[in-house]
Amino acid sequence: MTGIHDLAREVGVSTATVSRALRGLPRVSESTRERVLEAAVRLGYVPSPHAVGLASGGQTRSVAIVVPFVTRWYFAAVVHGAEQVLREQGYDLLLYNLAGDSAARHRVLRTQVLTKRVDAVLVVGLGPTAEEIAAMQRQGSPVVTLGARVEEWSSVRIDDVEASRTAMRHLLDLGHRRIAFVGGLGEDGLDFTTPTARLEGYRSSLHDVGLPLDPALELDGRFTLDGGVDCGRAVAAMDQRPTAVFCASDEMAIGLMSALRESGLRVPEDVSVVGVDDHEMARFFDLTTVRQPVHEQGRIAAQQILRSLGGADGPAEVAPEHVELATELVVRATTAAV
Amino acid sequence: MTGIHDLAREVGVSTATVSRALRGLPRVSESTRERVLEAAVRLGYVPSPHAVGLASGGQTRSVAIVVPFVTRWYFAAVVHGAEQVLREQGYDLLLYNLAGDSAARHRVLRTQVLTKRVDAVLVVGLGPTAEEIAAMQRQGSPVVTLGARVEEWSSVRIDDVEASRTAMRHLLDLGHRRIAFVGGLGEDGLDFTTPTARLEGYRSSLHDVGLPLDPALELDGRFTLDGGVDCGRAVAAMDQRPTAVFCASDEMAIGLMSALRESGLRVPEDVSVVGVDDHEMARFFDLTTVRQPVHEQGRIAAQQILRSLGGADGPAEVAPEHVELATELVVRATTAAV
Repeated sequence: MTGIHDLAREVGVSTATVSRALRGLPRVSESTRERVLEAAVRLGYVPSPHAVGLASGGQTRSVAIVVPFVTRWYFAAVVHGAEQVLREQGYDLLLYNLAGDSAARHRVLRTQVLTKRVDAVLVVGLGPTAEEIAAMQRQGSPVVTLGARVEEWSSVRIDDVEASRTAMRHLLDLGHRRIAFVGGLGEDGLDFTTPTARLEGYRSSLHDVGLPLDPALELDGRFTLDGGVDCGRAVAAMDQRPTAVFCASDEMAIGLMSALRESGLRVPEDVSVVGVDDHEMARFFDLTTVRQPVHEQGRIAAQQILRSLGGADGPAEVAPEHVELATELVVRATTAAV
Repeated sequence: MTGIHDLAREVGVSTATVSRALRGLPRVSESTRERVLEAAVRLGYVPSPHAVGLASGGQTRSVAIVVPFVTRWYFAAVVHGAEQVLREQGYDLLLYNLAGDSAARHRVLRTQVLTKRVDAVLVVGLGPTAEEIAAMQRQGSPVVTLGARVEEWSSVRIDDVEASRTAMRHLLDLGHRRIAFVGGLGEDGLDFTTPTARLEGYRSSLHDVGLPLDPALELDGRFTLDGGVDCGRAVAAMDQRPTAVFCASDEMAIGLMSALRESGLRVPEDVSVVGVDDHEMARFFDLTTVRQPVHEQGRIAAQQILRSLGGADGPAEVAPEHVELATELVVRATTAAV
């Protein structure tokens, strides 16, 4: 059976270079990589994942990434950001897309399905419960959270309350007083920190300026385009229509605006709309929004994972690091003075 | 060490039920699954991936899915469709996002990085070369392709040439004779079958009605929003402007329309625009497009993989199956008579 030494001899480079070339790591010239790969294919070299793991201090060279919904732009972009960094260091990505399924969440976070399969776990957009934290700690693999903060593990996120307050401040500054909220109030039984925090930012903003909370103005847009459409129809049909709507995601805002316009309402003349994310499509709708750095969060989370995995000497005992990135109001054409 | 028998005794069910519950398979009641999982957590049960594999006829209970760009809607939606089917049967998904990187493609498709890591491979949106086919056959795992057809393996796709011809027929029927094409002409050195086939459909449609090919009307939109914007600016600046543009993806069409409107051109009064996909956002832009079934392609590919993996008796020798799904013209408001 062809081994790494055979390849090194065949190509005339060190085994370390062969190893780096096979794993797609940097600091190997394109032509050397090409020759190593050609030789590997020609000689029928089959790497042992176990051996590769041992040689590099890890076990599986795989990292699990757990996302609630891979088809939503935000999560796909986060996966992309994390994956670039991990791939560069020779790690594979095991994707767990929960797709709103609480049984899948239970299986991934509370049983040991991940044990022995991955070296580390990145949990995106979910606030793990105490039981989940305990279960994952028993597994022993480093965990990083993105979008939620758990004291025991490193995390990266934006301040979701503050993001909401930024959007609300903009609407209040424009003179709006009757402002609706479109968020995710149920979210299919999964516990997400983001919807709750964004609702909190909406409520506290109203409270701070002495405006009353009106339950009729808090709508469930399910964080989807279709949910936004439903809320837009509901808003258009209200007797006491709000003059502005704060949507906790751009996708909901896009759906909402479409339904408002179908009902003959103009944005922003009749209703101002502001979102959160700065989705790649937001500029095409001229949508005013609160931009969050998405790829960046994925990249930072991946770097936190790599640090906790340590180098050639094996896992390092690193203190949890909590990174909070700034958001930014992007004023376009969907908001105006009341 | 706690084993599956301990769990079965603890919960009072068969080991088969425990196994199904742990793997998230159907035909286990929610309350039984809950009790099995609780017991597994409480007793510190750690499944051996190897044992799980042996018990079910597979080796790793993982399937690799190779996609060129996970952040594009089409690919994320395909992954989602495939994942639902595979997860239901207890398979994990190893995601390889090439992100336009030909070295990554080489590593995944031509070296043996996938060997021993996965039971099967789903290749999405790439037309494997003869060398890649040979390399993957040496690995021995079943392969299924989505979006391209390889004789040796099962595949699912739409007829990309016909999809283009459907869009072009619509524009020609409306009287357009000067029609531009926006597609992916270079695509970063990766070989995709889709861009080539869609260009072919454009050219053959013109040829069939005796219209000349004009290289100045074939633009590279890189299959991205930004690429579409660039092409929209280029079209707006043309001396002999086309009266219609066929974009080989909705994302390019959306970018293009935005740039056309910024240049003071009206859609469809000055320029008709038609796309391909029926992207989830297409209806919000009132975009005329050729709809393809996206989730459905992911689901069918996953079923092809499961069939090739066989049941409890191990891999079955199945004849390759080639599924071609129909596309459909969806006329909205971005196309009009010349």
